[in-house]
Amino acid sequence: LGDGDVFTPPPVVHYHMNNVTITDDPIGNSESVLILTPLARFYEGYWDNLVKLSYPHDLISLGFIIPKGREGNLATQLLQERISKTQAPTNKNRFASITILRQDNEPPVLQSEHERHALAAQKERRAAMSRARNSLLFTTLGPTTSWVLWLDSDIVETPPSLIQDLASHDKAIIVPNCFQRYYNKDKDGMDVRPYDFNSWQDSPTARGLGEKMGPEEILLEGYAEMATYRSLMAYMADANGDSRRVINLDGVGGTALLVKADVHRDGAMFPPFPFYHLIETEGFAKMAQRLGWQASGLPNYYVYHYNE
Amino acid sequence: LGDGDVFTPPPVVHYHMNNVTITDDPIGNSESVLILTPLARFYEGYWDNLVKLSYPHDLISLGFIIPKGREGNLATQLLQERISKTQAPTNKNRFASITILRQDNEPPVLQSEHERHALAAQKERRAAMSRARNSLLFTTLGPTTSWVLWLDSDIVETPPSLIQDLASHDKAIIVPNCFQRYYNKDKDGMDVRPYDFNSWQDSPTARGLGEKMGPEEILLEGYAEMATYRSLMAYMADANGDSRRVINLDGVGGTALLVKADVHRDGAMFPPFPFYHLIETEGFAKMAQRLGWQASGLPNYYVYHYNE
Ligand SMILES: Nc1nc2c(ncn2[C@@H]2O[C@H](COP(=O)(O)OP(=O)(O)O)[C@@H](O)[C@H]2O)c(=O)[nH]1
Ligand SMILES: Nc1nc2c(ncn2[C@@H]2O[C@H](COP(=O)(O)OP(=O)(O)O)[C@@H](O)[C@H]2O)c(=O)[nH]1
Ligand SMILES: [Mn+2]
Ligand SMILES: [Mn+2]
Repeated sequence: LGDGDVFTPPPVVHYHMNNVTITDDPIGNSESVLILTPLARFYEGYWDNLVKLSYPHDLISLGFIIPKGREGNLATQLLQERISKTQAPTNKNRFASITILRQDNEPPVLQSEHERHALAAQKERRAAMSRARNSLLFTTLGPTTSWVLWLDSDIVETPPSLIQDLASHDKAIIVPNCFQRYYNKDKDGMDVRPYDFNSWQDSPTARGLGEKMGPEEILLEGYAEMATYRSLMAYMADANGDSRRVINLDGVGGTALLVKADVHRDGAMFPPFPFYHLIETEGFAKMAQRLGWQASGLPNYYVYHYNE
Repeated sequence: LGDGDVFTPPPVVHYHMNNVTITDDPIGNSESVLILTPLARFYEGYWDNLVKLSYPHDLISLGFIIPKGREGNLATQLLQERISKTQAPTNKNRFASITILRQDNEPPVLQSEHERHALAAQKERRAAMSRARNSLLFTTLGPTTSWVLWLDSDIVETPPSLIQDLASHDKAIIVPNCFQRYYNKDKDGMDVRPYDFNSWQDSPTARGLGEKMGPEEILLEGYAEMATYRSLMAYMADANGDSRRVINLDGVGGTALLVKADVHRDGAMFPPFPFYHLIETEGFAKMAQRLGWQASGLPNYYVYHYNE
């Protein structure tokens, strides 16, 4: 279909919400998964990994939101090239459906990993990311969705069984440990290092900092200027540890993040404004908690972020 | 279609979000409207009024969420009887689509107007309402929706031009004045009185009360136990006043409420937890404000609530 073409649903559809199960055996129960990706740049490695996921593709819908502008246009073009092959009618392994949203605004213009991570830039950047995530979520979540997998466009390696592995823990919100492969000069070989520091357990210091802050201030993780003494899941990884080890979390990152659709349906979104001094995915975990849902993490189960 | 039947969308749909306009001339620009109704009881007067709306019905989708249990079953049955006539293939005036969600939980069991409005019952009741509204919203909002009209199931009378009248003001969030017809013994005739007190302008007293409250406490309007001195839109009505008079609001009621879909897409939902000591539709107005959107009201433009 071209731009703006729409399909006509039948005039009445009736859904019993308790017929849409959300269980630890999502394949056995034919549960639908919606994979949502905010996408500013397209990485071939992302798509290669995505098509290798062993969860039945006819139960997977994909949703993308892409910014306006040159970079977004390029990302859209590269994405559509891969889609047209994967979604060929002859491909038995194609996905159930794909929705691509083009935003009507451009992203803040900080693009290098270094610039993006500068403390001063984070609040504006993560507020824009929150709005993009909310737009994508509110627009694509349907009545039959059981699970939402948030997957950043620069996640280039996961176990093929990612979805069923995460779901098997039967947690409301569950996040793997996001690492990055890199060349370690000292070892003269490839190595891994933590990448995402947004998955953490809260600390009295961080709570104390929050209490002293003004209403518009936010707490951010991984900045020397703001020592929180939170327990970061990034540092709990144990190369020889049990990959099924589960911990409770108070903040989560969004590079890869499995959420029971009912958590979102209850109202859990990504606050672009300070919510208990937290924003975006960290604020999401707090909002879910206010709605009665606990976030969990897998310190010894890995996904890998692209290395620029 | 029967329970659980689903239709298959085409494999890829691409939407430019700036092609979905949201303007003061929604009919001229063929803008899609989603009417959302949490429905615990079915009123024939609601449906009679709905089908009389003069906004083009092929641009209107309807979404309902109905609780589990006996009362919900009855409401579903009565709703489906009216739907099957209105949506007959021969009816040129049928709506674009209708989605009915059945909740997997029952509502709190307070059903008389008197019981529902008791202060002690409000927090639990309005938290349940918030979750129902969020579930309905997250599940039915689509990529082509321009406007969301929240319309309670007991609103039995509105101007037929309700949608285009409200939209013509080009406001992010706009709410008419919700009144009730009743028999006035003194006048020995029918009369009108205010019904919904949730649309208000904030006061220093209410802000002061909020500041002194614990984090789990909520402010509620229309209770002698808690005098807020807010300016209530219900009391600003002027029978001879201009029906196009617009005022700014800090809290809104949800009996009839038109929202630009982008406000919801940014993340504005109905907080079931205290948000700045506000919940449900009043918390929604506050959350929208945190997202940069202003709520408005029409003190001299009326809709009418059923009288039990
Ligand atoms: N739609 C949209 N996606 C974005 C925007 N900025 C970043 N992204 C995507 O959001 C995800 C996270 O952003 P990224 O820059 O990788 O964050 P980091 O890895 O935490 O530095 C990635 O999938 C990006 O492609 C934006 O403004 N709009
Ligand atoms: N789905 C759902 N709808 C409800 C529930 N309770 C009330 N409603 C509907 O929500 C709207 C507002 O509730 P109502 O009892 O009329 O509130 P009031 O007019 O403020 O006293 C109406 O459309 C009701 O039919 C509930 O638990 N679940
Ligand atoms: Mn990234
Ligand atoms: Mn009512």
